[in-house]
Amino acid sequence: MALEPARVVRQLRELKELTGDENGAQRVAWTDTWNTARAWLDGLLEGLPLERVRDAAGNDWWTLRGDSERAVLIGGHIDSVVNGGWLDGSLNVVAGAEVLRRIAEEGTPPVTVRLVNWADEEGSRFGRSLLGSSAAAGSMRDQEELRRLTDGDGIALPNALAACGVDLDHALDAHAQLASAAAYLELHIEQGPVLETMGIPLGAVLGTYGVERWRIIWTGQAAHAGSTPMDRRRDALAGAAKLALEIRDIAARVGNGAVCTSGGVVCKPGIVTSVVETAEQLLDQRHLDAASLAEMLRQAKEASDRFAAEENIDVTWEKIWSIEPILFDETLIDFCDEACHEVAGVSHRLPSGPLHDAAEMARAGVPTVMMFVQSLRGLSHTKLEDTLDEHLELSVAALDRPADKAIARVAANP
Amino acid sequence: MALEPARVVRQLRELKELTGDENGAQRVAWTDTWNTARAWLDGLLEGLPLERVRDAAGNDWWTLRGDSERAVLIGGHIDSVVNGGWLDGSLNVVAGAEVLRRIAEEGTPPVTVRLVNWADEEGSRFGRSLLGSSAAAGSMRDQEELRRLTDGDGIALPNALAACGVDLDHALDAHAQLASAAAYLELHIEQGPVLETMGIPLGAVLGTYGVERWRIIWTGQAAHAGSTPMDRRRDALAGAAKLALEIRDIAARVGNGAVCTSGGVVCKPGIVTSVVETAEQLLDQRHLDAASLAEMLRQAKEASDRFAAEENIDVTWEKIWSIEPILFDETLIDFCDEACHEVAGVSHRLPSGPLHDAAEMARAGVPTVMMFVQSLRGLSHTKLEDTLDEHLELSVAALDRPADKAIARVAANP
Repeated sequence: MALEPARVVRQLRELKELTGDENGAQRVAWTDTWNTARAWLDGLLEGLPLERVRDAAGNDWWTLRGDSERAVLIGGHIDSVVNGGWLDGSLNVVAGAEVLRRIAEEGTPPVTVRLVNWADEEGSRFGRSLLGSSAAAGSMRDQEELRRLTDGDGIALPNALAACGVDLDHALDAHAQLASAAAYLELHIEQGPVLETMGIPLGAVLGTYGVERWRIIWTGQAAHAGSTPMDRRRDALAGAAKLALEIRDIAARVGNGAVCTSGGVVCKPGIVTSVVETAEQLLDQRHLDAASLAEMLRQAKEASDRFAAEENIDVTWEKIWSIEPILFDETLIDFCDEACHEVAGVSHRLPSGPLHDAAEMARAGVPTVMMFVQSLRGLSHTKLEDTLDEHLELSVAALDRPADKAIARVAANP
Repeated sequence: MALEPARVVRQLRELKELTGDENGAQRVAWTDTWNTARAWLDGLLEGLPLERVRDAAGNDWWTLRGDSERAVLIGGHIDSVVNGGWLDGSLNVVAGAEVLRRIAEEGTPPVTVRLVNWADEEGSRFGRSLLGSSAAAGSMRDQEELRRLTDGDGIALPNALAACGVDLDHALDAHAQLASAAAYLELHIEQGPVLETMGIPLGAVLGTYGVERWRIIWTGQAAHAGSTPMDRRRDALAGAAKLALEIRDIAARVGNGAVCTSGGVVCKPGIVTSVVETAEQLLDQRHLDAASLAEMLRQAKEASDRFAAEENIDVTWEKIWSIEPILFDETLIDFCDEACHEVAGVSHRLPSGPLHDAAEMARAGVPTVMMFVQSLRGLSHTKLEDTLDEHLELSVAALDRPADKAIARVAANP
């Protein structure tokens, strides 16, 4: 039986009906709807000679034993954000299931091939993304913090996991699953506008951006909007406004795909009759090159000190989170790039702005790559998320090729 | 008996003890603490030949009948904001009571002299300031809106007023109190840093600023902070940031005391991983000259259109509120200015940034003036609000003089 990319699109539509509503996809991890989606995914693989395992972190594995224990992994996540899109995560695993079916139906492969459905990539309910893949990667080091997380209804994360059969204290046991991993492939919608803007259906992903994520607190002095002369003001918003504009110049100067975002400013007292006393500003900087990322952060901090002096206000920086750039495997990138050319006649190599489970695999030392398919209008995490059917079909066909090449490569380098 | 300015300071301290707590003054209108303060104020005037009236809007009037019905009014408000200062409002009425006592003890004046304690100047509980004075002025035209206002506990404004004996439907009956009003005087702390910066204790107030108060809504497109190249962004915060800086240049260009404030920006989705889709920005512009104020607004709107075009975002303006500049009476300003010179050896003429009950009197056609006494660090609406005792005493002495001159002027121009 040959690969049937059109079947993947039909199955994704079926999943959308089954687990979505008028507000979008509702496959939030650790909920009944997510369990429904996980069982539905398992149903797609019925009748194939696969071993099924749910690991200690709630990740589902379907294993096609090959001549060698060494394994090529194809992964993704079926969980979504609240009111999410129909493709984010689910495309990866449903396409992966189709590729696994094609391989299984051709007989025993030279190496083992495994499909993995990662638990809670999105972190939509508790705010901690990449939960299942970080447990498998062994990089989950925040159990104490995880124990304190609660959802909007006050339910603690460990209790929600326990209701799905996962004991947080033993989640890292999932790391055993990677013992024989030799390659990891993940297809994903781009979630950005680059491929659409270039008119290219598919691209090979170079790695995931390093991220510096900070909260910047500007402190001036509240003062009456009517009685305080302009030259007597210490306006915290002025600092935040200058930095919101400056980070764009920083991204332009550093270049090579640099992005800087100020996602918001919270002003206090925040009333129309008062100069702003404190402005808490969010900053997110990303680059695929670690030195460039460090330079972007340095320039932003330097600029903030200059603005604070100009405005006679104070500025402090609080780190929210950061991660180093994670580069994917060069050979696997070549495989993906070739596949894009072969099925679409054109390809583009691009970094991933968002993090993905693939980043956890790469950090764990598994040679890893991702392939992106064009997102319409760059939208994701919304019911408006969409991709042309013909591009979805191309992406399934394209994923199939590096899977075969990875199998051959692993078989040739035992 | 002569005027005793030091007594006023003692009385203000007594009021602070009686109606404040560790967080500041708690004389919020339409509360028990406010009623305590109103009764305490009435007690200061015991034993004097005064007629007492609580009008239909809850304003308290103490009337010293003179040879003529025509009346010189001295006014203020004993209500405070939540966690307010000890002087905002209360200085006016307590000093006014001392001046009224001095006049009453000298016998029947040539014209009637009245002290008024306005109800709910601050609007701290329901967000509608100048409530009592606008009823007396006849300018209260928002009864429908007032009926819908609720406090933080969901109590409707009409019910809170009714509990204090005020029927909102008849509040405008208070206008009858102004039938014979021929002059209005109000002492107040400056609530700004101008006099302190100049080292001057007292100043004569020229009028209250005209105010343009707007909500500016910038609309771009939410987009992933990692996957959206800088040149593909439509960042609503960029528009708000540019305008927050531009309004300072507008104030500088227009000059003559112009002030422009952006009191806050509310960003949505407001998360670190997304470009800002909507930014709701508060703008407050003030000037004592109507044409200058209009020019400031024009320049801000023009700049916002330019920024929207530069950023490929949309901008709309929603009016929150506006008021024309209100100029005080020139002769009464001269009286105040002379009094400042006489008691402090120096004076300064300045506009009032904040609105005051005096603005309602001036709009109602009553010749009006205010006198400001220096505020330490320009702070108000906080427990940190303060003024030197010696300056408070000077202010009582200074208020006494234009009261006498106003009486003489009204007597001479029947």
